[in-house]
Amino acid sequence: MDDTEVIEALNTIFNADTGIYQQRGFQRRVGYGKRPALVHIDLANAWTRPGHAFSCEHMDVIIPAVQQLNEAGRAKGIPIVYTTTAYADVEGPNSDMGLWVHKIPVELLKAGTEAVAIDERIKPMPGELVIVKKRASGFHGTHLSSYLNAQGVDTVIITGVTMAGCVRHSTEDAIAEGFRPIVVREAVGDRVPGVVEWNLFDIDAKFGDVEPLSAVLEYLDGIDPFESRAGIPVLASV
Amino acid sequence: MDDTEVIEALNTIFNADTGIYQQRGFQRRVGYGKRPALVHIDLANAWTRPGHAFSCEHMDVIIPAVQQLNEAGRAKGIPIVYTTTAYADVEGPNSDMGLWVHKIPVELLKAGTEAVAIDERIKPMPGELVIVKKRASGFHGTHLSSYLNAQGVDTVIITGVTMAGCVRHSTEDAIAEGFRPIVVREAVGDRVPGVVEWNLFDIDAKFGDVEPLSAVLEYLDGIDPFESRAGIPVLASV
Amino acid sequence: MDDTEVIEALNTIFNADTGIYQQRGFQRRVGYGKRPALVHIDLANAWTRPGHAFSCEHMDVIIPAVQQLNEAGRAKGIPIVYTTTAYADVEGPNSDMGLWVHKIPVELLKAGTEAVAIDERIKPMPGELVIVKKRASGFHGTHLSSYLNAQGVDTVIITGVTMAGCVRHSTEDAIAEGFRPIVVREAVGDRVPGVVEWNLFDIDAKFGDVEPLSAVLEYLDGIDPFESRAGIPVLASV
Amino acid sequence: MDDTEVIEALNTIFNADTGIYQQRGFQRRVGYGKRPALVHIDLANAWTRPGHAFSCEHMDVIIPAVQQLNEAGRAKGIPIVYTTTAYADVEGPNSDMGLWVHKIPVELLKAGTEAVAIDERIKPMPGELVIVKKRASGFHGTHLSSYLNAQGVDTVIITGVTMAGCVRHSTEDAIAEGFRPIVVREAVGDRVPGVVEWNLFDIDAKFGDVEPLSAVLEYLDGIDPFESRAGIPVLASV
Repeated sequence: MDDTEVIEALNTIFNADTGIYQQRGFQRRVGYGKRPALVHIDLANAWTRPGHAFSCEHMDVIIPAVQQLNEAGRAKGIPIVYTTTAYADVEGPNSDMGLWVHKIPVELLKAGTEAVAIDERIKPMPGELVIVKKRASGFHGTHLSSYLNAQGVDTVIITGVTMAGCVRHSTEDAIAEGFRPIVVREAVGDRVPGVVEWNLFDIDAKFGDVEPLSAVLEYLDGIDPFESRAGIPVLASV
Repeated sequence: MDDTEVIEALNTIFNADTGIYQQRGFQRRVGYGKRPALVHIDLANAWTRPGHAFSCEHMDVIIPAVQQLNEAGRAKGIPIVYTTTAYADVEGPNSDMGLWVHKIPVELLKAGTEAVAIDERIKPMPGELVIVKKRASGFHGTHLSSYLNAQGVDTVIITGVTMAGCVRHSTEDAIAEGFRPIVVREAVGDRVPGVVEWNLFDIDAKFGDVEPLSAVLEYLDGIDPFESRAGIPVLASV
Repeated sequence: MDDTEVIEALNTIFNADTGIYQQRGFQRRVGYGKRPALVHIDLANAWTRPGHAFSCEHMDVIIPAVQQLNEAGRAKGIPIVYTTTAYADVEGPNSDMGLWVHKIPVELLKAGTEAVAIDERIKPMPGELVIVKKRASGFHGTHLSSYLNAQGVDTVIITGVTMAGCVRHSTEDAIAEGFRPIVVREAVGDRVPGVVEWNLFDIDAKFGDVEPLSAVLEYLDGIDPFESRAGIPVLASV
Repeated sequence: MDDTEVIEALNTIFNADTGIYQQRGFQRRVGYGKRPALVHIDLANAWTRPGHAFSCEHMDVIIPAVQQLNEAGRAKGIPIVYTTTAYADVEGPNSDMGLWVHKIPVELLKAGTEAVAIDERIKPMPGELVIVKKRASGFHGTHLSSYLNAQGVDTVIITGVTMAGCVRHSTEDAIAEGFRPIVVREAVGDRVPGVVEWNLFDIDAKFGDVEPLSAVLEYLDGIDPFESRAGIPVLASV
């Protein structure tokens, strides 16, 4: 099967599944809230550049989409978060890789290397947060949820890779934590055929809304400027 | 497409994807540890019996598989946990359903009803734990992780439904928390074509080992009896 | 020492400590937000009635204070949560008590008994949430954080017992999760001399604002009615 | 009151409280397990050196105690973890400080500065983990629990500062997560009179065992060498 045939076969299945889901009351819309944040999952060089075990496809579409989202988000001052996956110790008996190295090659993701740095094309600006995570979800074992919660964020706009791994788990956790997940269709990717389509289908049925870039940009243009809820207090005498 | 054609089309895709994953060092084996627990996800009537929005298929295979696993697990005294999804308030403005009701019909899962009780055919015995969860993952917002951790459990044998929802999210969380996830192929299900196969494929590539029932039963037969680490202390004078 | 002497000795210490804290920039005010919830910790019979290992003092002050807070909160429709601590299995080798039974007598807190039911004098009304927790903090291993987060709550008004145990741990977690903790001075208690005063002192220095009942009631009177953010969607055809 | 008088006054109170706790079945021993880890809370320069808002006392006792514990732990190869508290952005509207800056001066804890680096006298060795946390507890919003869980750790030996803040919250979380907390009396500190004593008293009554350094060193000498459970798999061809 070539890529077109894969998509065709999957769409045939999705149409059948959608019939059942619709009849059962699934595939509802969670919708947009009023205080969004952008969360970019693992758009670091090991995933965005060729030649790595983790390299993903379609960066010619994903990177410009993220750039547009960042521009729109910065115009409103919303929180922007980038995750990467990296480990302090990829060799020793007490490594922080945990059990994941027994499934996928995380021993290649050494903290402090170029591989795990956020791609320069979407370089974080001062005041934007880079979270180094150890697991698939951006929420698991990190301060992401409490960071967003302290800021009164109600909507998480998600991009990045991989769709079948970290993006999916992050989206599932986002709605579980109480944030409205919006996954941007043009801004997510992976490395093997079919997984982007399938995981977007599952997500849209159950965990978050899969939305086109244009709709998300339009939404960001329409929101009020983000008013901080967790900034520095004015201190009388420190 | 009928079911056979769906499976055939998916297998063609999986074969192509597996070639890439193998070359990249994915699809490793996490393997079995020494202190397992059984975790049965959402095998309550709303999922296991016909006529509900949540009803799943193939219970003629899943229920007997779970019965066999329970028998083998009970022979060794390992922890056995059942989850169900239920809400105290499915109507009011301050409902505990959170945002999930904006994606799927959780308003049908009222706590205390027959629909959310564990299926009688796999009725929990005294000393086995039923956890009422609010989100997809059995770990999210529950005491499952700390319960297993206090008992020194290192392996989580997962069954139940749905594969594209609660089973998948629970499996992702299991390895994130530091447990070896073993998903029992014959003991998991869903309600629309293709999703069991696709999600097992993703899981086996990245998050846990998908194993046949026979292998899991053989493993349980071979382990030492489970010695409690968190039982009641012998108290001198209370 | 009698009670008055205890308080006097503690106040002498607190005055010295306050001098240092003030000089160093501690003891700031976190303040009130706009969307509060009431969280009542372990006001169940085992704590509020005499004759239990867990019985606490000063219920003649605490219970009326909680009644007043509930009345004020209900007038605005804010979320009201009650926690209790209870275990499904207080005997078996795979009990859900975890390790805590090795420190305190949680084997007396059997789920479903009168002991762990919320005190009738502050009986939860329909739409108010009772969370059964297994650990000290109302947030640990429960859906409390995601429940509050989904509702856009920014402030947690805390009452209950014990100050040195569950109230303190819940307050520490509340600010960690991103909620403004307000501990109501007249509405918290414990069972041994001095611990209420000391733990309120530590909390006010570092984790939340300790406020008199009158100030909290005045605050609740002044807020806007609580507008739900997570209620049932209007569904076209279910 | 001078320091001796503070201790005397507190001991009088503790004796009265202990009488009640003992009668009620509190103050039990959680004891030591078989697979310990050392967790050193916030022994970074801002706390261990003079001249900071966060500076603590008695480092002449605490630092040597931690050195001895590290030596004993390294001899057995157990996991050793150091936490520090630091923020990527201590100025901007979307700072990662959350709400805590509204209680204590965390704006002084800028990531990457000498102030938040672990004290050179107890410098982490390769393979030992430094966790940068944002909240009081070493477990909150970090991978500490899943790191320890993946390694099958059952006991957490806790040192550091401050006793009324991060050490206490970490200890409460440790037992909640399912680890046996052992707090080393000589290796914990704070910055205002009385708080070390009071918080050790509360902890020992309810959350973990407060043990003298000599007992902990003896325990570490007696355990088996730590056998890793989460190291690198032997890979056929990566």
